[in-house]
Order: sequence, then structure tokens, then C-alpha cells
Amino acid sequence: MSEFDALWDAILDVGRHGGTGGYRRYAWSDADLTLREWFRGCAEQRGMDVEEDRNGNLWAWWLPTGWVGEPRDAFVTGSHLDSVPDGGAYDGPLGVVSAFAAVDIVRARGVVPTIPVAVAAFSDEEGARFGVACVGSKLVTGALSADRARALRDNDGVTLEEAMTRAGRHPEHLGIDETLLKRIGVYVELHVEQGRALDLVDRPIAVASAIWPHGRWEFAFHGAANHAGTTRLSDRRDPMLAFASSVHAARTAAQRHEAVATFGKVLVSPNGANAIPSLVRAWLDARAADEATLTALVDQISAEAGGFATADGIDLRVSAESLTPVVDFPQAPRARLQRALAGVGDVPVLATQAGHDAGILSARVPTAMLFVRNPTGVSHSPQEYAEPADCNLGAEALADVMVEWVG
Amino acid sequence: MSEFDALWDAILDVGRHGGTGGYRRYAWSDADLTLREWFRGCAEQRGMDVEEDRNGNLWAWWLPTGWVGEPRDAFVTGSHLDSVPDGGAYDGPLGVVSAFAAVDIVRARGVVPTIPVAVAAFSDEEGARFGVACVGSKLVTGALSADRARALRDNDGVTLEEAMTRAGRHPEHLGIDETLLKRIGVYVELHVEQGRALDLVDRPIAVASAIWPHGRWEFAFHGAANHAGTTRLSDRRDPMLAFASSVHAARTAAQRHEAVATFGKVLVSPNGANAIPSLVRAWLDARAADEATLTALVDQISAEAGGFATADGIDLRVSAESLTPVVDFPQAPRARLQRALAGVGDVPVLATQAGHDAGILSARVPTAMLFVRNPTGVSHSPQEYAEPADCNLGAEALADVMVEWVG
Repeated sequence: MSEFDALWDAILDVGRHGGTGGYRRYAWSDADLTLREWFRGCAEQRGMDVEEDRNGNLWAWWLPTGWVGEPRDAFVTGSHLDSVPDGGAYDGPLGVVSAFAAVDIVRARGVVPTIPVAVAAFSDEEGARFGVACVGSKLVTGALSADRARALRDNDGVTLEEAMTRAGRHPEHLGIDETLLKRIGVYVELHVEQGRALDLVDRPIAVASAIWPHGRWEFAFHGAANHAGTTRLSDRRDPMLAFASSVHAARTAAQRHEAVATFGKVLVSPNGANAIPSLVRAWLDARAADEATLTALVDQISAEAGGFATADGIDLRVSAESLTPVVDFPQAPRARLQRALAGVGDVPVLATQAGHDAGILSARVPTAMLFVRNPTGVSHSPQEYAEPADCNLGAEALADVMVEWVG
Repeated sequence: MSEFDALWDAILDVGRHGGTGGYRRYAWSDADLTLREWFRGCAEQRGMDVEEDRNGNLWAWWLPTGWVGEPRDAFVTGSHLDSVPDGGAYDGPLGVVSAFAAVDIVRARGVVPTIPVAVAAFSDEEGARFGVACVGSKLVTGALSADRARALRDNDGVTLEEAMTRAGRHPEHLGIDETLLKRIGVYVELHVEQGRALDLVDRPIAVASAIWPHGRWEFAFHGAANHAGTTRLSDRRDPMLAFASSVHAARTAAQRHEAVATFGKVLVSPNGANAIPSLVRAWLDARAADEATLTALVDQISAEAGGFATADGIDLRVSAESLTPVVDFPQAPRARLQRALAGVGDVPVLATQAGHDAGILSARVPTAMLFVRNPTGVSHSPQEYAEPADCNLGAEALADVMVEWVG
């Protein structure tokens, strides 16, 4: 059994739903806390010092022999441990498991680091529970204010502040962390690919060129609740109709802009089979190759949805929940990655439509990403998959990169 | 304060949601159990014997002096105490409160009944929790089998059997109740009107002619979960699109058939903002003036929804959750109601699109209904309303009817 396999198998059952086979590893849930304990155990087994920073991100440190004082210029690698609802096993944990496996491989090669190494797991990357993605990395860099973060609410009305407090954390300490940022020399995140680009060219590993700008917008269609049987069609102010039209408007606008736009989350009130809804809340996920296109896309969908709402005599309120600008990963670390991976053969360079903590951190520190082939392209689904051989190759590649930086 | 007002005020806070102002009085919930205790108290204050039948329906008996043995040929009046999600105060409780108030009024007039009188509250009329409406009356008459009822599940996966057991009931005894049916001479249900017909003709009270045939169908659109950012539009099997098209197909078909059709309840899986859904479950409520039209309406919507699903490469499964045939209230009791209400002035005769326990019971016993004016027509909403003067007039009218039968 490889270093990778042993680590991987230990968490396969954590937060997995018996019915769907998907993972429900939401921030500060029991599953999340179990994974945090697993992280701590992995670090301790390797003699790495563990700390949870003020924003709930986990760090396991491997310092050069005789290192004194604050780490600096560290080579940091990792990803996240939380999941979307009924997500797959790879999105996030693959990067953390590969990071610990890479430490093992580097040590097995007899390499002694000359600069600090850290394995990191960022908190609440998916935003599945509180609606905002990359909460941990955004707090570190100041992209999300502590006040806004503390007030985020889940679908049950529990705030992030309450959830962290229940988990024994101290949300009063949330906020930008300059000391932590100064420690990071580079952050290299390994991630399962979430499309089929590598499969189509039959290669196991890629490096990232860029992340598309992307965001989430809440569309709240406010109508009037009434009896579904007795209310004449002409007397209705049913918000479901304008929402339904907006679903198609989003798809059509995305095609026109060569972008993607999705309504994947919907909450209906009161959600009774014999009641016309008073409110349909729907979340638009939109992404495009550049920021001007993304703005045009969302403006068009919002305008069309507003037109549908007006025609039906209902109100529409659109609010931006998050907006992440384009990330162009810097040239220098990317070139160094490619140099380290010369032994792997041809390593494609890919842009991705998915947000990552590496994208958030790139506003403040050098970052780079590695992708591991996904033979179906499926992600955010229990069917998400990567071949064991490719996962092991990914850990070896990450070890090659680590040696390039710290050897 | 009238007999009606004192009864009415006692339950105004039970199961009311602080945020919406609507009622959440679901079957076998704490709110439902509180209302059952209130019912028991009302009966005991009036010296009426209370019993809960094997199907959870409540009965308060006022027997003629010296009556021995089983009640028979009883005049029964009442309604239900449960609500839709965020429903109004009147739908259901108005009939129960008016029934107890009518007993008080009849007694105040010095009338002594010559045949048994009962006030009834039927269990789980709205079906808000377990998906099937009129569970209590359907079990009594055999329109719903005990096995199917016990297996009904709420959104949290709790079965009706489990919910009743937790409430200290005995779901093993559910089922058709011939002994109970033999006791009923007539069932007269008073209900708030759920349209504006009385308001439009400026009258306070109506009698029912018929209930439109109606039912609920679950439309389960099965697609494939995937990442909302990285999955190309052409690679998607997103079930939200066919659902959205079906919302409009239902509205258009309803217009064509001069009927109503509503998708008011939607559950999306996994319901993550950055995940293409694997499954959209949506419930169609459809009602029409006759059964042939209802069948044609639902067939058309199902066929069109199936076409949308096929075009998008997803699966659609349509299943009937409930189907209630047309109810034509019998002539004899209706004529007797109208005779009793001669003092009220002109009493319109209305068909209703809403289902009621009176409609279910009419398969086995004589039934009739009274409607109290709803000035806005709004129902299944916190805004549901009836004027206090009309509510008092309704209780007086019900007392007139009671005297006609039992005096």
C-alpha cells in the first residue's frame, strides 16, 4: 500500500451519506470536526507541529533542523476537507492527502528541507453551509470581513459565529492575518480536475494557468402565498413562473457568452403542495473567461428576470453573495513547477472554471496549482473519480515540486 | 365577548411562526398536540364526552338526555386543526371553533337535542407533513389504506407510523371504521371561503354545491449532479431546465382547460449553489370542474414534461400521490341547510376548488358545507382573513342548522 493509499482509505467513510453515497462534510459539522482530528493525527504521526489559525485553517509544519522563530518563505501545499452537498471524495481531500503523502515521499528520498514546509487545510472552501465560498482563505487575506463572516447564516438560521462557538472555536478572533501571510513563500494546491481536458489529451497531470472570474447571486422572487386550488390564475402572483423563465434565460445567456450559468440551489416558501409560493429564492452560479463577459452575463440574466417578475406583478431582488475576480497564476512559480515535472512528460497548462483557495491567496502570495486527471470530468457528485494510479502519480509529482523548492 | 371570540382567541398563538406570522400546525407536531388538548378542554368545559378515534380524529359528544348505547344518526359538525406551511388562522380552525360556539348558542336558546350532536376535528386534513391530504377522513372511509398511511414519510424521513407512536398513539389500529360511520347522520362542515365569490356578491354565508376533482402528482426529474463551474453546457444533464419548462406547461394547460395547476412545492438535490442538481422533485396540484378535464389536464402536463426531459437527456417519473373524485353534495341536506338559513337572507350556492373532509366523507355519509365570506379570497397564507362579524354570523348560522336537525 502506497503512502497515498493508506491516508486516503482512513477518511473514506467520514461524512458519507448512506443513501446517496455522496459526502456531506459541511463547515463546522461533526464530519468536518472528525476530519480536522484526522488532520491533526496525520501531522502528529509525522512529527509535524499542528496549529489552527484564527480563521479555522489547519497548518502542519515541517521545519528545517535547528529552525528558530517564525517560519518564513515556506513551501505550503494542501487544499480543503469540506464538501458540497453529496459531493465526491476527491474535491479537496485529494490535495490534503497528497500533501501528507508528498512529505512521506520526500522523506523516503532522504531529502532534508532547507526552508519550512507546511501542509494546509483551508476552512469552508465550498461555502455549502453558509453560502460564501473560500471563507477560510478569504478571511486570511481580508477578501471577506470578519463581521460579514460571523453573520453568515446556514439554512437553519445558525450563524457562522454560532457554529464556530459550538465547535469550541473563537469567532471573535476572525480576520485578516498578516503574520500568517508572511510565513508563506508559495502555496501549491493539488486538486482533482473538474473537467475532461486531461482525459481528452490522455495526460495524468496539468498545471493551472488561470481561474475564471465567478460568483454567486441570490435571486429572491417575492410573490403572494395563496391557495393553489381556489385562486384564479388571473389573481395569482406566483413567483415560480418568473423563476422558471429565469432558469432558461440563464442557460441561453450563458450559451451566447460562451460562459456557464446555473441555478442549482432553490428554496421555496412555504413549499406546500397546495400553496402558491410567497417566495422563491434561487442562487445563480455564473462564470466566464473574463470579468467584462461575466458582468455582461449576470446583468443580462438579472434584467431578463426582472422583466419576467414585472410582467407577473411580483418583486425580484438580486444580491451578489460573492464575486471572485479572474486569477492569472503567476509565471515564476508555474515555470518552476513545470521544471520540477519534466520527468512526468508533457504537462498541459489549463484554465479552470472552478474557484480554489489558491485563487484567493494569489492576491497576496505566489500560488500555483496542479490538476490530477478526472476520467469522466464529473465533480460535485458522488460519481466524482480519479484513478488510483493517477492519484499516486499526483503525490509523486507534488513531492517532485516540494524537492524543487525545499531540497 | 361572543362565544365565538373567546374560543377563537385561545388558539391564536399556537403554532404561529414569529417570523412569517403564518401557522405551522403539522399533523402530530407539538402544535397539533397542543390544539388537540385545547379541543379536549373545550369539550370538557361543555360536559361533552371526548374521544379520539382509531385514526386520530377527535369527537366531542353531546347526547340527548337519557341516551343509552352507541350514538346514531348524529348531527356532526367541525373541521380540522392542522395547517399548510405558513397557513392562515381560519382554514380549519374556523369550523371547529364555530362548532363549539354553535353548541353554546343552541344551549343558550334553550334547545335540547333529540338526536346526538358531535363536534369533530379531523386529523391531518392539509397533508402538509406527509403529502396526502385528508388522512383522517380517508382512513375512516377506507379511501386510504392503513398500510399506505403508516408508510407515508415527511421531508425528514419520519413515517406517519413513527410520528403517531412518538405522540403516544397506536398506528397499528389505523383503518376503516364502520362503527364510527354508523354514528353519523349528517356531517356539516363550516369553512372560510377560499375564493372571492361571496365578496363579489356582498353576502356573508354560502352553501356548497360541489368540490372539484383534484389531486397531487409528484414529478421527479432525474439528471446528473456535476460541478456548476466546470461542466460544459453541452455535457450537462441538468433537471432544472425540464422542471422550469414544466412550470410554464402547467400554467398554459390550466388556462386552456379553464382549470388550475400549480407547482408550489419543490425539493432540489443536492441543492448546492455550485452543483448542477441530480434531482428536482416538484409537486403538481391540479384541479378541474370535472374528472375528464382533470385527467386531460394532467395527461397533457405529464406528456409535455416528459418531452422536455427526453430532450435534455434526463429521466422523468410522475406518480399520483392522491386523487379525489368530484363531490356533488347531496340535495336533501343542502335543501335542509337552506331552509334553516332562511333568516340570513340570500345564501349563494358555490362550487369549491378546495378539498375538504366533508368531500371525503360524502362517499359514505350525507354531508354539506357552509362557507364564510373571505374579503380578499386569500387562503393558505398568513394574510387569510374573515371579518369578526362574519365569523359570528357563521356560528349563528351553524346554530340555526343544528337546531333544524336536532331541535
